[in-house]
Amino acid sequence: MTLRSTLDFLLHDWLKAEALTQRPRFAEHSRQTFDAVLDTCERIAREKYAPFNRLVDTEEPRTETVPDGSLRVVLPRATHDARAAYAESGMLAAAQDYEHGGMQLPYLVEAAANAFFGKASISIGSSLLTVGNANLLMVHGTDLQKQVFAANQFNGRWAGTMCLSEPQAGSSLSDITTRATLEDPNDPLGPRYRLRGNKMWISSGEHELTENIVHLVLAKIPGPDGKLIPGVKGISLFIVPKKLVDAQGQLTGVRNDVALAGLNHKLGWRGTTNTLLNFGEGQFKVDGQAGAVGYLIGEPHQGLRCMFHMMNEARIAIGMAATMLGLAGYEASLEYAKTRTQGRPVGAAGKDPNQPPVRLIEHADIKRMLLAQKAYCEGALALLLYCAKLVDEQHTADEAAADEARLLLEVLTPVAKSWPSENCLEANSLAIQIHGGYGYTRDFPVEQYWRDNRLNMIHEGTHGIQAMDLLGRKVLMENGRGLQLLAGRITATIERASQQAALVEHAKALAKSLGRVGAVTQAAWATGNPTEALANAVPYMQAFGHVVIAWTWLELALVATADASKNEANLQGVLPATTYFFHYELPKIDAWLRVVESRDMTCANMPEAAF
Amino acid sequence: MTLRSTLDFLLHDWLKAEALTQRPRFAEHSRQTFDAVLDTCERIAREKYAPFNRLVDTEEPRTETVPDGSLRVVLPRATHDARAAYAESGMLAAAQDYEHGGMQLPYLVEAAANAFFGKASISIGSSLLTVGNANLLMVHGTDLQKQVFAANQFNGRWAGTMCLSEPQAGSSLSDITTRATLEDPNDPLGPRYRLRGNKMWISSGEHELTENIVHLVLAKIPGPDGKLIPGVKGISLFIVPKKLVDAQGQLTGVRNDVALAGLNHKLGWRGTTNTLLNFGEGQFKVDGQAGAVGYLIGEPHQGLRCMFHMMNEARIAIGMAATMLGLAGYEASLEYAKTRTQGRPVGAAGKDPNQPPVRLIEHADIKRMLLAQKAYCEGALALLLYCAKLVDEQHTADEAAADEARLLLEVLTPVAKSWPSENCLEANSLAIQIHGGYGYTRDFPVEQYWRDNRLNMIHEGTHGIQAMDLLGRKVLMENGRGLQLLAGRITATIERASQQAALVEHAKALAKSLGRVGAVTQAAWATGNPTEALANAVPYMQAFGHVVIAWTWLELALVATADASKNEANLQGVLPATTYFFHYELPKIDAWLRVVESRDMTCANMPEAAF
Repeated sequence: MTLRSTLDFLLHDWLKAEALTQRPRFAEHSRQTFDAVLDTCERIAREKYAPFNRLVDTEEPRTETVPDGSLRVVLPRATHDARAAYAESGMLAAAQDYEHGGMQLPYLVEAAANAFFGKASISIGSSLLTVGNANLLMVHGTDLQKQVFAANQFNGRWAGTMCLSEPQAGSSLSDITTRATLEDPNDPLGPRYRLRGNKMWISSGEHELTENIVHLVLAKIPGPDGKLIPGVKGISLFIVPKKLVDAQGQLTGVRNDVALAGLNHKLGWRGTTNTLLNFGEGQFKVDGQAGAVGYLIGEPHQGLRCMFHMMNEARIAIGMAATMLGLAGYEASLEYAKTRTQGRPVGAAGKDPNQPPVRLIEHADIKRMLLAQKAYCEGALALLLYCAKLVDEQHTADEAAADEARLLLEVLTPVAKSWPSENCLEANSLAIQIHGGYGYTRDFPVEQYWRDNRLNMIHEGTHGIQAMDLLGRKVLMENGRGLQLLAGRITATIERASQQAALVEHAKALAKSLGRVGAVTQAAWATGNPTEALANAVPYMQAFGHVVIAWTWLELALVATADASKNEANLQGVLPATTYFFHYELPKIDAWLRVVESRDMTCANMPEAAF
Repeated sequence: MTLRSTLDFLLHDWLKAEALTQRPRFAEHSRQTFDAVLDTCERIAREKYAPFNRLVDTEEPRTETVPDGSLRVVLPRATHDARAAYAESGMLAAAQDYEHGGMQLPYLVEAAANAFFGKASISIGSSLLTVGNANLLMVHGTDLQKQVFAANQFNGRWAGTMCLSEPQAGSSLSDITTRATLEDPNDPLGPRYRLRGNKMWISSGEHELTENIVHLVLAKIPGPDGKLIPGVKGISLFIVPKKLVDAQGQLTGVRNDVALAGLNHKLGWRGTTNTLLNFGEGQFKVDGQAGAVGYLIGEPHQGLRCMFHMMNEARIAIGMAATMLGLAGYEASLEYAKTRTQGRPVGAAGKDPNQPPVRLIEHADIKRMLLAQKAYCEGALALLLYCAKLVDEQHTADEAAADEARLLLEVLTPVAKSWPSENCLEANSLAIQIHGGYGYTRDFPVEQYWRDNRLNMIHEGTHGIQAMDLLGRKVLMENGRGLQLLAGRITATIERASQQAALVEHAKALAKSLGRVGAVTQAAWATGNPTEALANAVPYMQAFGHVVIAWTWLELALVATADASKNEANLQGVLPATTYFFHYELPKIDAWLRVVESRDMTCANMPEAAF
C-alpha cells in the first residue's frame, strides 16, 4: 500500500472525514478539497523533502562565526527550499480562520497531510513548532500579539520555537531559573520584561530560514524580595523575538539579546538544528543593557498553563513522526524483500541447489517481520488519526460530544505519543534486519530511520513521564470518567465484532484484555499509595497501548469485513494484520500487567549499592 | 559492580574455574595465573582501547589510492597501537600449546579476559578473526600450513580473515560463485589453485596493521565439465595470503591478486574495516596471470565442514560482544543516574518545590531501567561463560562429559549468540533513555554502544538463521538428546532451588516454563512439516532464550544464598536481579510460545499483494 491509499482508507472508509463538512466551520470543504490538500503535500514531500533526507543527515547543521563575534547556523540549500515550499503551500495556516488567511481545515486532514513530510524527511521538518507557537498566541495573546507574532508565523515570514528546558532541569520545569524583570508594563506589544538565563534542547533555536524567530520562553518573575518562586507556580510565559519588531510587525533593526551558545550533535534527526541559547547575557545589548527583551503572554505565573494548552497536539505530532519513520522503513524493507533473492524455501522444495534462490519475501520469517511492521505502523497511524479527529470533535462538536472528545484525548494522548515511539522504533529495527548486512550500511535508508526514531521516546515528555501521566493522572481524572468513556467505545467495537464470524475470537480476546486493564488499574491503586501504584507505570502503559491498538485494528477489521467492495487492496491486508496483532502482540500484555497488579516493588526497592 | 568483580564472581564463586587446573592441560595454571591474565587485559583495555572508542567511530577507515593504482586503508594511530599491545600481550595464542608459544589457557579464562576489550572498544577489536583463522588451520591444515600461516598469526606478525559471503549470496553459501582452478597439486604450501570471485562483508579484509593478511576463502572447484557444483557440497576452503610467502614464511616480494574494491560504511562498529574484496581480477598479476593464488586446506569439497568447525566459538564471541556493549551502557547510565539530579520523588515527599531535586537513581522507573540492564547483561555474561566452560569440557573432560558438553553447546550456541544480540541491544536503548536528551547526543557514549550493538543480530548468522538452527536442527539432533541434557541440567537447578525458601517460587516458575518449552517443541513438530514447525522459529528462540537466562539467574541466586559470606557486593544484587528476571521477563514466554504451539501461519500465509 502507498501511504496515500492507507490514508484514504483511514480517513474515508473508517473515519468518515467528509462528515465533518456538515459542521459550519468546515462547510466549504469537501472530499475534493481534502484530496487537493493531500495531493499538494504528497507532491511537495516527494519533490522537496524525500530526495534530501540523507543529505540533511550527512551535512548536519554547523556554525560559523560572523564579524560581530556571534554564531550563525549554516544549513543545506535543500532545507531552505523545503521550508519555502512548505510555507508556500499554506499548510502553516491550515487550521486558521479564513479571515486570518487560513484554510479552516479539520485537524484530521491537516495531520494526515503533514504525514507525507514526516515520511519523506522527518528532520527537515514540517514547522510543527512554528504552528504550535502561533496557535498558542491565538489563544493566549493580545490582539496585537496575534497580529504581530502569530500572523507572521502563519504566513511563513517568521518561524517559532518553544523554550522550556534548561541545562540543569530537563523535564523538571519547576526547577527552571531563567529570570524575567519588569521593564515597562505599558509596551503596546505586552508588558515588557528583560530575561536572563540559558535554554537547552531548543529545536530550530537559530537559523536563517526566515527573517525572524519568535521564541516562546518560560521564565520566572522574582517576588518583591528578589527571589524566584519555587515550583511551577512561579512560571510565566514570554514572547522573545530574535530581532526586535515594532507594533506593525516591522523589524526595528535592533538585534535582541538572544545568542546561540552551541549546537547539540545528535544520533539522528540531524536535519533539525538543536540549540543551546543564552538569553540576556549581553552579547547583543538592547538600549545599552544586557537582558533579552520579552513580552508577557497572559497573566504572570500562568505560563505553564498556557504552554500545556498545546501539549496534546504536540504529542500527537510526535507519535505521528514515529509512525512515519516506521512506515518509511516498512516501505523500504518491503521493496527490498520483493527484489533481493536469497536462500531457498524451508522443506523439500528448498533442497535442490539447482533451483534458483527465491526472493526474501518468500521466507516466513521475512513475512513475519513485514507483517509486524505493518501491524505496528498502520495501527499507530489509525490511532493517531482517531485522536486527530477527536481534536476536531473537541472544537466543533456539540457540547456533550466535545467534552467526551476532550476527556478521551486526555486518556489517549500519552498512548498516542508513547506507543508509536516504542513500537515503530522496533519496526525500524525489523526493517534493518530484513536488509541483513546491507541494512547496517549507510547505503540504505533504514539505519537512518532507526536513528531518527530513537528521539521520539525522549522529547515532548519521556516514556516515563507519559506513563506517570497515564496511570497517575489520566485514568483517575474526573473519577475515572475518561477511562470509562474509552472502555465504552472499546466495548461497542467488541459488540459489533462479536456479530462477525471472522472476528468473534478477536472480540473475545479484546474483551478479556479490557477487563484485565480495568482490574489492574484498580489493583495498582488499591493501597492508594502513589509510590506503589506508579512503580510500574511504564509496563502499565505498554499494556494499555497494546489494548488500544488491538481495538484500533478490530475497528479496521470491521470496515474490511463490512465493506469488502471498497478499496480492495487495503482491505486484503487488514484482516491478516489484525490477526497478527491479536495472536502475536496482544498476549504480551499479561507479562506487563502482572507486575502492576501485584504492585511489584523489586525495582523500586533495589538498593543503590547493589547495582 | 565493576566488570572485574562480576567476572571474578562468575568464574570462581559460580563456575569454579580453578578446578580446571586439575586437568593435565591446565595443570601449570592457578588462580594467580588466571588473575594475572585478567589484570593484563584489563590494563591494556583501559589504556589502549577505552580512550579511543569514540575516535575510531568518528575517524572511520578510509581509503587512499597508492601509486600502483590500488587502494590502501588508513586507520587511526590508536588502532595500530591497540593492535600492537594486544599482540604483545600474548592473547592471540592464549589457548595454544606451550610448545607453540601459547599459554594453554582454558577458553573460559580467555573469553573472560577478552571481555575487557569488548567493553572498552568493540570495534577496535580483539583479533577474534585472526585467532579463529589460525585455530582452523591448526585443526585442518598440513604441518607446513600450520607452521607458516597459523604460527605467524598467533605470534602477531600477520592477521587473518574469513571470506565467506559474496554480494549476491549473503547468508546463502550454497550460491557462492568464486571459482578455484588447480595450478599445481604439488606446491609445498598445499595444492595450489587460482581463485576468481568477489567477497563481501570481509572484516579487516585490508589494512596495514600487520605485515601480511591471511585470507581463508570459500570457493568452488569446477567439475570436469567446467561447471560449478551447485549447493554447499561443491565448496572448498583455501588459504589466500595478501602477499605471497615461501615455505619458510618469508614474504617473496610478490603481491597476490587480491584487491580492495571498497569499504562498507556502517551504522556502527566503525573502528573495524569492512571490505569488498576482488580475488583474481588481474590487478596484481602473479607470474603474468590474473587469479589469486590459494592453497587448498584439507580435501576438496569439505570447505564448509572445515569452516563451521569454528562456528560455535565465533558465535559465542558475538554474544560476548553484544553483552560487553550492553554492560558498557549499563555502567555509563548507572554513573549518570547516580550523579545527575532531576525531579522529585512520587507522592507527598515530592510536593515541596523548596526541596532540592533528587538524583535520577532515586526514581523507580530509572531503577527499573537499570535493573533490566543488569539482569540482561549479567545474565547473558553468565550464560556465555557457561558456554565457554563447555568448550573446555568438550576438549579436556573425559569422553562422556566431553560428549555431553559438545551436545549442550550445540543447543546453547544459537541462544548464546542471539539472546544477547537482542536483549543487550535493548539494554543499550534503556541506557540512552536514562540519559534523556543527553543520551541522544554524541557527547555521551551510549548512542554509540546502541549503534555498535545493532550489528550483532546480523553477522555470524542472522537472528532468523539462528532460530532455524535451534528449532530446525539443534533441538532435534541425536533424537533430541541435546535438549534432554539441557532440561536435565535445568531440572537439577530447580531441585536445588526448591530447597531454598527465597527461591522456591522461582523454581516453580522455571519448572513450569521448562515444561512449556518441551511441550511446545513437540507441538511445533506435531505435523512433521518443517514449513509449519519453523514458521515461528524466532518467537520460539526468544522464549527458549528467556528460559535459559532464567535458569542462569537461578544458578547465580543459588550461589548468592549459599555463599553469603563471599564477594558480598556482588551477592547483594543477585537476588533482586533474579527476582526482576522471574517477575518481569520470564512471563513474556507465553506470548511467544503460543504462536509456535498453534503453528500459527498468519505471517507465512500473508499474500504478497496484501503487504
